[in-house]
Amino acid sequence: MTKLPSQENLKEDTPRHKRLAEAIEAKNLSEAQVIVNEASADDQRRIVSQLDLRVREQLCELLPAEETADLLKNLAEAQAIELLEEMPVELAADVVEEMDADISGDLLRELNEEDSEAIFAELDDTDESEDLRERASYKSDSAGGLMADTVISFPSSTTVANVLQDLENHAEEYNDADVQYLYVVNEHRHLIGVLNLRSLVLGKRLESINRLMRVNPLCVDVNTSLEELEDIFDEKQYLGVPVIDEDGCLRGIVSREAVEEALSEARKDDYLKAAGIVGGEELRSMPLKDRCLRRLAWLGPNILLNLLAASVIASYEDTLQAVIALAVFLPMVSDMSGCSGNQAVAVSIRELTLGIIRPRDYFRVLIKEGFLGVTNGIALGIVLGTIAFLWKGSLFLGFVIGGALMLNTILSVLLGGLIPLVLKRFKADPALASGPILTTCTDMCGFFLVLNLASLVLHKI
Amino acid sequence: MTKLPSQENLKEDTPRHKRLAEAIEAKNLSEAQVIVNEASADDQRRIVSQLDLRVREQLCELLPAEETADLLKNLAEAQAIELLEEMPVELAADVVEEMDADISGDLLRELNEEDSEAIFAELDDTDESEDLRERASYKSDSAGGLMADTVISFPSSTTVANVLQDLENHAEEYNDADVQYLYVVNEHRHLIGVLNLRSLVLGKRLESINRLMRVNPLCVDVNTSLEELEDIFDEKQYLGVPVIDEDGCLRGIVSREAVEEALSEARKDDYLKAAGIVGGEELRSMPLKDRCLRRLAWLGPNILLNLLAASVIASYEDTLQAVIALAVFLPMVSDMSGCSGNQAVAVSIRELTLGIIRPRDYFRVLIKEGFLGVTNGIALGIVLGTIAFLWKGSLFLGFVIGGALMLNTILSVLLGGLIPLVLKRFKADPALASGPILTTCTDMCGFFLVLNLASLVLHKI
Repeated sequence: MTKLPSQENLKEDTPRHKRLAEAIEAKNLSEAQVIVNEASADDQRRIVSQLDLRVREQLCELLPAEETADLLKNLAEAQAIELLEEMPVELAADVVEEMDADISGDLLRELNEEDSEAIFAELDDTDESEDLRERASYKSDSAGGLMADTVISFPSSTTVANVLQDLENHAEEYNDADVQYLYVVNEHRHLIGVLNLRSLVLGKRLESINRLMRVNPLCVDVNTSLEELEDIFDEKQYLGVPVIDEDGCLRGIVSREAVEEALSEARKDDYLKAAGIVGGEELRSMPLKDRCLRRLAWLGPNILLNLLAASVIASYEDTLQAVIALAVFLPMVSDMSGCSGNQAVAVSIRELTLGIIRPRDYFRVLIKEGFLGVTNGIALGIVLGTIAFLWKGSLFLGFVIGGALMLNTILSVLLGGLIPLVLKRFKADPALASGPILTTCTDMCGFFLVLNLASLVLHKI
Repeated sequence: MTKLPSQENLKEDTPRHKRLAEAIEAKNLSEAQVIVNEASADDQRRIVSQLDLRVREQLCELLPAEETADLLKNLAEAQAIELLEEMPVELAADVVEEMDADISGDLLRELNEEDSEAIFAELDDTDESEDLRERASYKSDSAGGLMADTVISFPSSTTVANVLQDLENHAEEYNDADVQYLYVVNEHRHLIGVLNLRSLVLGKRLESINRLMRVNPLCVDVNTSLEELEDIFDEKQYLGVPVIDEDGCLRGIVSREAVEEALSEARKDDYLKAAGIVGGEELRSMPLKDRCLRRLAWLGPNILLNLLAASVIASYEDTLQAVIALAVFLPMVSDMSGCSGNQAVAVSIRELTLGIIRPRDYFRVLIKEGFLGVTNGIALGIVLGTIAFLWKGSLFLGFVIGGALMLNTILSVLLGGLIPLVLKRFKADPALASGPILTTCTDMCGFFLVLNLASLVLHKI
């Protein structure tokens, strides 16, 4: 009998986190190791999220520090930080020592200061502790935060043959380094050239590497921002760029891969923020209190914005009382134009990301969205106006609703196109604030347009 | 006098696309080349988007095919496709011939069939035309669509020294290949091992490469999906994975970089889709008609969903007439709970992406969102209920509005958590459909709860 692997997986999977919990409870190290090590990174994330926090911590205490380090590396960052905070500080220090500097630097940076200081104090090797402290001091999305710090460098007079010989001789030692590029430095460890492995193996053996190296290589400062790194990797086909400190000394290498990964994290953050998940990602395994408070932090200000819009309706209660059918269409007009505006927001954020528009290109966006707003506004206005007329049998209602939707769509599309540019110009985050600002404006204007148009027409009659 | 480069940039930039347009009009090739080649990739995208389509096409005719190919590579994909469609087919074929196969394959796949067939027919070399046709037949997000097709392979008995010698001898020829990995094949070109450059340069020179190579290397089929590739690169630290065809022959290599890039494109698509930009990205330089129709395609069905919600209000017009102040709070209740639900949608989509939950983990999501919904529902209900009471001085209104918001928040958070799972389970796209479905449900339920609670209480009085 043969089974599809995925079916087997389905069948076995439900109890896996339970089997692990039992093994941990029984302090059965080998069983726990088998379950953890046989699981894929995805499965590890899921299994861990299904364990109680206390049991998770016991798992970390049970496993050898090296395996705990491997496990934390595979977990989502928020999960790893939660665990580091909970485990005893001696254990946390042991685990941190087993990690690569770029990963442990990331985690230590995100810990609260008290916890990270305790871990630094606990580290055996003061040099390492200093290095890690420095790393954690760089911003996570800067070159210093993203770089790997093992680099191989040679004096410029070395020949290709000698470099190849040295690599063969020090094979063991270099095994941990990311040997994509070799660096050429002077006596002060100042960077003077870069040589990639490709050029090395394709080069003539007796040539010295200063003939093959790229001179005056592009290098970045430890504080270089993710946006600047993106631009660099966008324009150049490099796999990595060397990073120097304030004194011009070579400190590490930031790889294209690390930058791509950080960028895709940043884009994911944009999506979460646009939906009101603020201040880092939420996992459902986090404590209820934290999840509630973080979501409320975004919903709270939203109440105030909503009240602004509601006050427009409140000031037209007479009109509403006269034509109660208007109340049926109020939310429709504001919702529909809000959707149109959100499309414009998404296109602006996208064009800003691609670099096709800059924050000061107001005029271009206004023109482009203006034509679209008029076209779509007329189309949607005719459709909804006709529906209102047919449904309620009132030509008056049809004109008021259709007209209000048309005007509000034009306005909303213009605003939606502009808001991300304005926010970006004032260094605010377009993904976070564009939605609520746009919704409030289109609600207010939508309610105002419907009710004001209606009261004007009622007056005339 | 020194100027900051960015300021100089600001000053010069406005007329740059105009200067380019003039150079093109005057058929001044060298001036056009200077402007195009001195611009960064970002600037190229922006400048091109500011030229009329006709002038853009003239630019491509003016530049040598090789430089046009470089320019198209730097543009956003939608821009490059637009240009290829517009230029004469002979020119398009020349440009395509100058591109790397993975880039031209992507573009040809996106062209309509008539245009791409015309280009295939025009290609000088029938072998190349066949290759490109095959490439364009792979899905863009499959291993076949993402792979680079220049690979270097050796028989397994070769020694390290011989490989190094061969690389030195054929340096010219290998210059185009992505020499991160060397492949070891048998006489049928079947893959039997992989050797990375690192292991090669760190290896003993007299050893044969079958001692250093990874045997039974992981390889993927041309049809392997992006999700499967993501899993592979997530679990293994490889820089690239070899791709084989149906006959087991080595066809290319798909790099981690290509997969990361495709994933970040896919995430960007999620964001655009959630905001109602469907069917690929929109650039404001596209024709107005296309932009209007594509945005309307998403707004149209939204009218129907909105009508569903409006019909709930319509069936309670009497209640509304009796207490007109309810109309002020109707949009607030539905908006607020919609926002709460959207937060849950974002967390579910994120946890699905991370692999922390699977589409069938309904129960876990319900429990976790249930507790959160009750807590936040009570908090928000008390706040809005109090506001309603204080504003209108009516205890009745306070209870109705507060109670409705509380219940609707719980419902909305549960729905928001579940909808992405259900959509994923039925192979629909959660980013696209979750928002409209959730909004319609929370609007309907919000209106119903407010108006029904009110009419029940009114009845009692």
